[in-house]
Amino acid sequence: MGLNSFAKIFMPKDKVFYNLFEEVAHNVQKMGEKLVVTVGEPDFEVRQGHIRDLEDMEHVNDEFTHRIFTELGRNFITPFDREDIHYLATALDDVADNIYSSAKKINFYRVDPGDPGIKKLAGLIDQGCQEIKNALLELRNMKNLRKITDALVRINSLENQADDVYDTSIQRLFATENDAKEVIKKRDIFQVLEIATDKCEDVANVIESIIVKYA
Amino acid sequence: MGLNSFAKIFMPKDKVFYNLFEEVAHNVQKMGEKLVVTVGEPDFEVRQGHIRDLEDMEHVNDEFTHRIFTELGRNFITPFDREDIHYLATALDDVADNIYSSAKKINFYRVDPGDPGIKKLAGLIDQGCQEIKNALLELRNMKNLRKITDALVRINSLENQADDVYDTSIQRLFATENDAKEVIKKRDIFQVLEIATDKCEDVANVIESIIVKYA
Amino acid sequence: MGLNSFAKIFMPKDKVFYNLFEEVAHNVQKMGEKLVVTVGEPDFEVRQGHIRDLEDMEHVNDEFTHRIFTELGRNFITPFDREDIHYLATALDDVADNIYSSAKKINFYRVDPGDPGIKKLAGLIDQGCQEIKNALLELRNMKNLRKITDALVRINSLENQADDVYDTSIQRLFATENDAKEVIKKRDIFQVLEIATDKCEDVANVIESIIVKYA
Repeated sequence: MGLNSFAKIFMPKDKVFYNLFEEVAHNVQKMGEKLVVTVGEPDFEVRQGHIRDLEDMEHVNDEFTHRIFTELGRNFITPFDREDIHYLATALDDVADNIYSSAKKINFYRVDPGDPGIKKLAGLIDQGCQEIKNALLELRNMKNLRKITDALVRINSLENQADDVYDTSIQRLFATENDAKEVIKKRDIFQVLEIATDKCEDVANVIESIIVKYA
Repeated sequence: MGLNSFAKIFMPKDKVFYNLFEEVAHNVQKMGEKLVVTVGEPDFEVRQGHIRDLEDMEHVNDEFTHRIFTELGRNFITPFDREDIHYLATALDDVADNIYSSAKKINFYRVDPGDPGIKKLAGLIDQGCQEIKNALLELRNMKNLRKITDALVRINSLENQADDVYDTSIQRLFATENDAKEVIKKRDIFQVLEIATDKCEDVANVIESIIVKYA
Repeated sequence: MGLNSFAKIFMPKDKVFYNLFEEVAHNVQKMGEKLVVTVGEPDFEVRQGHIRDLEDMEHVNDEFTHRIFTELGRNFITPFDREDIHYLATALDDVADNIYSSAKKINFYRVDPGDPGIKKLAGLIDQGCQEIKNALLELRNMKNLRKITDALVRINSLENQADDVYDTSIQRLFATENDAKEVIKKRDIFQVLEIATDKCEDVANVIESIIVKYA
């Protein structure tokens, strides 16, 4: 059996993971975009439509994550460490979960999303998801390492900016909102948005540990 | 040395894990039952007795978890992937922790457990723990795969129902409770109850990944 | 090639991890000490200086954690299980993060750190970090197992004491603080302090699983 036959047997299984992660990359990037649209929409009902779209996209993400775990159980051959595949899928799933959760809470609590802190955090998450896509699409061939590391550096920077926006928003919230129940609601939304940027950073950290080992 | 002697040497070590997970299964199922009794008890002092029982059961669970980790450190031969054993024991421990924690908080905060949301969530957790037991007791021989997958499907459905009950309860809480301190207390209890159902789903997910690989 | 040459080639890589964990041990222990100084400082501006020091120390810790993960990616030879190294570095990083975060929140929320619960929790964290250092410094030669296990027992006991202090503090907070916004702020600080002691216990649990396997 020559190398070509060998490749035919093993490469397709290998490619399964790249294909799945690229699907997730596209989906998560669209969720970031949709989040910005959602928090920019002043009308409750129209916003509810966007939130339902995000729910659908989050379900799509769950399916991909589930298939990655199933393939991980089936495949002896993986393109990078099994535990890295596991961590990467989990971190991406957490990004999707927190994007949908933050959008859902806005209508759930009937909070005005016009708050500048909410808009800024949504924008940073959107940029983070774009960079995640940039990095993930380069994983398959690993030829453009610089493009990956640049994306990772930007994700880390976005997370730092999000921390500052979060701090400023929470301090303003406590200083200006006298209704403690409103404080609880808005703080919850800020927290979930901020966790979404932490999860983007987790994705970046796993990708870094992958390229350190394999590049 | 024949196959029988071989089996005699290795099987007992293998069985250690099944035995321990079955002990945990029984214990967690009893904790679910006890939680329903606890939130159904109107008298503070009698309820305190049930909470102490739950604390004892949670300690028993800690002991089993600790023994699973110790065996994992000692045994080179495990009936399924070492990391799956680790995840499964951790997820079951989290179920037990959250059941005890939610019950404890009711008396701790002196909250009336007669709330319909609390009762419904406790009931869903109880059902989830019963299904966890159903699934875990089938792991040893893996002959009745359908029974395991049916239990996993039901655990996932229970978690979805719990999400809905949680959402409804939190919205009602914010709409009807004017004392923000009471909102904080009750929201904390709802959150811990809801996390308990998430942890039941985590258990189901690990069991699924085990049967995908070994069945 | 004799055993000595073999040792020369492999031992230095092995030692990298001990060196890094010992650096972390010293850093975390200093952070525990600094936390006690911070919560004992009545002046806002002077306290702010201590918080900035803690931020620097937390960054130093991040660097060490990052180097441990990088070495883990590079090294095929590790002194103990790769996953244990991963868990240990993560748990130590969580201790450092929660120490800095709790200190930061005190000035962030402009809360009076003179509260007896805050002081007691900071003291327990300080003791926990000292015991973590005691245990980590013995890992390299593993000759004084008793010294390690004694430290682990004390860390577990400190975590139990912290649980009690936390419960008492939260109950007193709800009973005596009428401003719900203040309840939210102080509860947040108590929670982060209590999580720091949980993370100390996580460190102890990983160290225990390491010595069970290798001692």
